[in-house]
Amino acid sequence: MNDIAHLGHVELYTNQFDASLDFFTRVYGLTLTEQDATSAYLRAFDDYEHHSLKLTRHHTTGVAHIAYRASSEAALLSRVAKIEASGYEVIGWVDGDPGHGRAFRFKDPFEHVFEIYWETQRYHAPDVEKPALKNIAQRYHGRGAAPRRLDHLNLLAANVEEFQRFMETCLGSRVTEMIQLDNGRIGGCWFTVNNKTYDLACTEEHGAGTGRFHHLTYATDQREDILRAADIFLENGVHIETGPHKHAIQGTFFLYIWEPAGNRIELANSGARLILAPDWEPVVWTESERKKGQAWGLKTIETFHTHGTPPVE
Amino acid sequence: MNDIAHLGHVELYTNQFDASLDFFTRVYGLTLTEQDATSAYLRAFDDYEHHSLKLTRHHTTGVAHIAYRASSEAALLSRVAKIEASGYEVIGWVDGDPGHGRAFRFKDPFEHVFEIYWETQRYHAPDVEKPALKNIAQRYHGRGAAPRRLDHLNLLAANVEEFQRFMETCLGSRVTEMIQLDNGRIGGCWFTVNNKTYDLACTEEHGAGTGRFHHLTYATDQREDILRAADIFLENGVHIETGPHKHAIQGTFFLYIWEPAGNRIELANSGARLILAPDWEPVVWTESERKKGQAWGLKTIETFHTHGTPPVE
Amino acid sequence: MNDIAHLGHVELYTNQFDASLDFFTRVYGLTLTEQDATSAYLRAFDDYEHHSLKLTRHHTTGVAHIAYRASSEAALLSRVAKIEASGYEVIGWVDGDPGHGRAFRFKDPFEHVFEIYWETQRYHAPDVEKPALKNIAQRYHGRGAAPRRLDHLNLLAANVEEFQRFMETCLGSRVTEMIQLDNGRIGGCWFTVNNKTYDLACTEEHGAGTGRFHHLTYATDQREDILRAADIFLENGVHIETGPHKHAIQGTFFLYIWEPAGNRIELANSGARLILAPDWEPVVWTESERKKGQAWGLKTIETFHTHGTPPVE
Amino acid sequence: MNDIAHLGHVELYTNQFDASLDFFTRVYGLTLTEQDATSAYLRAFDDYEHHSLKLTRHHTTGVAHIAYRASSEAALLSRVAKIEASGYEVIGWVDGDPGHGRAFRFKDPFEHVFEIYWETQRYHAPDVEKPALKNIAQRYHGRGAAPRRLDHLNLLAANVEEFQRFMETCLGSRVTEMIQLDNGRIGGCWFTVNNKTYDLACTEEHGAGTGRFHHLTYATDQREDILRAADIFLENGVHIETGPHKHAIQGTFFLYIWEPAGNRIELANSGARLILAPDWEPVVWTESERKKGQAWGLKTIETFHTHGTPPVE
Repeated sequence: MNDIAHLGHVELYTNQFDASLDFFTRVYGLTLTEQDATSAYLRAFDDYEHHSLKLTRHHTTGVAHIAYRASSEAALLSRVAKIEASGYEVIGWVDGDPGHGRAFRFKDPFEHVFEIYWETQRYHAPDVEKPALKNIAQRYHGRGAAPRRLDHLNLLAANVEEFQRFMETCLGSRVTEMIQLDNGRIGGCWFTVNNKTYDLACTEEHGAGTGRFHHLTYATDQREDILRAADIFLENGVHIETGPHKHAIQGTFFLYIWEPAGNRIELANSGARLILAPDWEPVVWTESERKKGQAWGLKTIETFHTHGTPPVE
Repeated sequence: MNDIAHLGHVELYTNQFDASLDFFTRVYGLTLTEQDATSAYLRAFDDYEHHSLKLTRHHTTGVAHIAYRASSEAALLSRVAKIEASGYEVIGWVDGDPGHGRAFRFKDPFEHVFEIYWETQRYHAPDVEKPALKNIAQRYHGRGAAPRRLDHLNLLAANVEEFQRFMETCLGSRVTEMIQLDNGRIGGCWFTVNNKTYDLACTEEHGAGTGRFHHLTYATDQREDILRAADIFLENGVHIETGPHKHAIQGTFFLYIWEPAGNRIELANSGARLILAPDWEPVVWTESERKKGQAWGLKTIETFHTHGTPPVE
Repeated sequence: MNDIAHLGHVELYTNQFDASLDFFTRVYGLTLTEQDATSAYLRAFDDYEHHSLKLTRHHTTGVAHIAYRASSEAALLSRVAKIEASGYEVIGWVDGDPGHGRAFRFKDPFEHVFEIYWETQRYHAPDVEKPALKNIAQRYHGRGAAPRRLDHLNLLAANVEEFQRFMETCLGSRVTEMIQLDNGRIGGCWFTVNNKTYDLACTEEHGAGTGRFHHLTYATDQREDILRAADIFLENGVHIETGPHKHAIQGTFFLYIWEPAGNRIELANSGARLILAPDWEPVVWTESERKKGQAWGLKTIETFHTHGTPPVE
Repeated sequence: MNDIAHLGHVELYTNQFDASLDFFTRVYGLTLTEQDATSAYLRAFDDYEHHSLKLTRHHTTGVAHIAYRASSEAALLSRVAKIEASGYEVIGWVDGDPGHGRAFRFKDPFEHVFEIYWETQRYHAPDVEKPALKNIAQRYHGRGAAPRRLDHLNLLAANVEEFQRFMETCLGSRVTEMIQLDNGRIGGCWFTVNNKTYDLACTEEHGAGTGRFHHLTYATDQREDILRAADIFLENGVHIETGPHKHAIQGTFFLYIWEPAGNRIELANSGARLILAPDWEPVVWTESERKKGQAWGLKTIETFHTHGTPPVE
C-alpha cells in the first residue's frame, strides 16, 4: 500500500453559506455530521470518515485545503520527511479539524493548501441513520442526488508540469492520463494514489488566478443516478453547466453544476473502470484529439475553460 | 503498493470445450486472444493483459489455476520468499503461459493451484479491435454480455479459516467481509489485495470435494448491463441459476449462470463501492443475519450451496 | 378512441391509516392532494387528475372501488347504457368523490365495485410543486420511489373467465395475455382499454374470499428506479415480498411490497412495450410454461398465491 | 379506437444502399425480413409487422413514404372517404408493398407521400429468431443498438400550421405539444393517433426544400440502452450529431446520428410517459422557452436546424 491511502476531504469556501449548505444537503444529498460557527462538516452516505467536505463561510469562494489520509502513522511520518526534504513550502503540523487527528500542511507552487493525516474518526451512524445492511457507513437515504462517496477534485495551475512534480514528490501520486498541448506544455494531468482512475486532476489556469479551484466531484453507483439527478437539479433551479455526457479522458460519465456560491460541482460515474496495472503507462491525449470534444462529441462549453473559484477580476 | 497488484487470470477446465468457448465469446462477450491445441485465451474488452481467462480442455470441470500479478519483479521475489518460508506446498517456477513471464506456483491446503508472476504481455488491439478512445484496451464491441474486466472468483474449502491464513500469508490479502457461523466456524471470507471490495472469496465446501470451484465473475459498468445480459442468457438457452439481485454481503448486484460444461459464472456490478480505508475492519455477518437472504430478501437457492465444479459423486 | 379512456383511480382500505399514508407519501413517493376525515387523495407526480389513489380508513384492508375515466360525456352515457343492459349488478349514479364529477357504479360478479366517470378536475400544481418543464403535471420531487403514474391493479376472482366477460361487456376491455390451466380454466387474464399492455389483471382466487384485491401498481420511467426503490424500501423496513425481477407474462420488470396495512403494492416498468396492433391476438400461456417461473427463472413465491386483502380466515 | 391505429412503417431513400443497410442491421440493430432488387425491409425486434422500415436505393436521400395502419377495414374505408373529401392531393390505391395489403396514398401540401392500409402480414419468426418468451415478436438478439420498436418520424414543412390541418383532417391525429413562435407561426407540432406521446412531428423547414425529412426514431426500453448505443456508434464511426440528452419538449431522452447516406436517425426513450387523457390540452412552448435549450440546458446544435434530407442546394 502506498504511504498515502486516499483523498480524505476537501474544504470549500462559500460566500453564501446557508444557500450552499442547503444545496449540499437537500439537493446534492450529503449528510451533515457536525456544524460549528464557521463550518459545516458533510459526507456522502458511504464515506467512512467524519466528513469528506468541509464547507466554510468566507468572503469568497474556492478551495481552502485538500486532505489525503495516510496508510499508517509510519507512512504519514515517512511522507512528511519527504515533503520537508522537497523544498516545497511547508506550513507544518496543525491540530486537525473535528473528525481527524493532527495533520501536516504544505503548499503546492500555486498556493493550494494540502494536508496529510492518519488518525481519523470513523462515522458512527446515529440510530436514525443506521443502514439495513451493515457494510455501508450510513443508510441509503435517497435524498437528492445521493452520491455514494467523495471521488476527486480538480485544481487550476499556471504550470501543470510543475504541479505534476509536486504531486509525485509530495503524495507519491501517479499520472494516469494527461493532455500534451502542441506548444509542449501539459494542458491537464490526472493523478491517483490508489486504484481509482484519479483522485485529483489539474488543468491549466486560463484566468490568471492563483490557488484556484475548478471542481469537486462525488461518485454515484450508476449512470442512471446522474440522469435522475439532472432532473432534481433542474427542478431545484440549480445551474447545470454541461452534461450529462461521457468524458473522452477517463471515460467518466459526468454532470457539472454550480452550487449557489458558484463553486463548480460534478457528479460522476466511472463504471467498473479501475487502474489495476502496477505499471500503468499514462494515456497521453494530443491537442487535436481534444478538439473532437467529449466522448460522444459534445463540445466543451466555454465557461468550463474560464470559470474557476474564486473568480478573478 | 502491495507486493501483489491484482488478480490476473483464472484457468478453468471444461469437458465441453467447443460449447464453453462459444458461450464465453458469443454470449458472455469475451474476446479470444489466442488458441492452441488445449486452451483458449480470453479477455474482457478492458482487461489490459493477454488474457484473464484460460479455458482448457479436460475430462472434467473446475479451476486449474489462479494467477495474481505482482507489483514489480522485486515484489514478486519478496513474495516468493515468504511463500517458501510459509510451509505451504510449493510447486515452484514454471515458464508461464502465453501472455506472461515465468510464474511461481504453490498450493493452498485444499488443492487449489495458485501462481504469481510479474512480466506480462499487454494486449495490443489489432486494427479491427482498436478503440475509438485510447484509454480502453480494446473497442467496446457490445457483443453478448460484454463485461468490462475480470472481477473475482470464489473457491470452496473445507476449512475457510485455514484458507484465510493461506491468503494472508501467501498473497498478503486482507479480509473485507466474512460470515461467522454459530458453531464458531467461518462460513465464508472475502479477500482483496487492492482497493476492490474483493478479488477472491472462499466459502465452505458442503460437497466433500477438494480443490473445488464455486464461480468466476466479470464486472459490468452498470446494473442495467446485467438486466440486459439476463435476456441474452435467456434467449441463448443458458441456465440462469439465480438473480439478478443484490448481495447482502458486499452489496454486489449479481446474476449467476452455468456455462455449458457446468462451471458457475457470475456477472456483477459493485457500483462505486471501493475499500479505500487502509485500516478497514472486516464486516462480520452472523448466521442469523445470513438467514434473511440476499439484500432485498431473495432466499439463496439450494444449488448455490451444493453445486461446485468438478462435481462430486 | 374507446368509450373508456383509462384507469383513473383506485380506492384502497387500510386499517392502519397513518402508517399507510406515511408509506405512500414519504416512502412510495406519491403526493397528497387533499385529505378529509376518512380518506387521503394521492397521486404520482405525472398523474394529471386530482388523485389516482384514494386511501380510506376502514376496519380492514382491500379495494373499495376501481374507477375508469370515459372518453367523453357521450361515451360515458353510451357505456352506462351497455352496463345497464348487461344484467351485471348496478349501484347507479353517485355524486363522485372530490376531484371528479358524477360516476356510475356497478359490480363485477365477485363483489368488486367499479365506477366510470367523465368530468374530472385536473391537478393544478401549487407554486411549490410547479414543474420546471410544463409538460409534466407536477415537479419531479424525487422523494422515495417517486413513480411517474398509476399503472394497473390486480383483482382476485373465483372464476376468471366470468370476470373476463364482465370486463369485455362493461368496459370494452380487450385481453392482451392470459393463462390457460390444464383443467381448462383461465388462471389469469390481463386487460387493457388503450395502448398500455394492461391496466387491470385478474387472477384466480385461491383464498375462498370474495371481492379481494391482489395488488396495485405504479409505473417508473426506468428499471433502475425500481432497483433504487428496493434499497429505499429496505432502509425503511418495508416488507419486500418478491423481486426485482422480470415477469414472463407481459415482460414487466417488477417489485412487490406490502404497505403497512398489508395491501400488496407493486412498482413496475414496461420499457417501450405497448399494444399498438388493433387486432392483437391474446398471448396464451399454458400451465407448464408458467411452471418455468418468471422470465429469468425466479420461482413465484408462495405468498403470491395466497396473500390477498382483506385476509380470509 | 381511432380509425388510424398507429404509425406502421416509413420508407427512406439512400444513395449509399449497402452502407445504409449495414448500418441499420449491424450497428442500429434492426432485422432484415426480406430484400428485393431495390429495397430492404427491416424491423425492430418487437415490431409485429413484416417491416417498419423500407430502405430503398435512390439517387438521393429523404423519405419516400409514410404509412399508418388503420384499425379495421371499415376504419380504413371511412378514413379514405374523409381524405377524398378533403381536397388534399390523392394518389389513390396501390397494391401495397411486400408485407401488407392494398394501401391508399395521398400527399400533404409539402410533397410528403402518406399511405394508410389495414391488411398486414404479421412477422413470423423463423426458428433462429424465435423468442424465449412468446409475447415478443422476435428474440431479443442484443445486436447493436437493438431498439424495441418504431417510434416516430419528423418531417419538415414550410408551414407547420397547414401541416397540422392536414394531419387532423387526414389521419385524425391530435396535437400533444407545439411551439408558438413570436411571429405567430407554429415552429413545430407533435402529433399522435393513439396513447403514445407522438408518432410524428413536424418542424419548420429552414432549408427551402419541399418534402424533406428531418429524422426517424426507434424506441429503446431504457435510457441506459441509449448510453450504451452511443458507445457502439462511436466505435463504429457513426456521426453522432447531438445527445444523449433529454428533450424539453415531450421529455424524451434522445441521441441523434446520421446514417451513412446522411439521413438523421434518432434513438429515444420516453420512460413511462403516455398521453392517457382523452381531452389532453396541447402544451404550447414559446420562443423564449425554447431558447433555454433542451431539458438540462444543452443548446440545440446548428445542424439540427439546417440539415434535412434530401439536401438542398
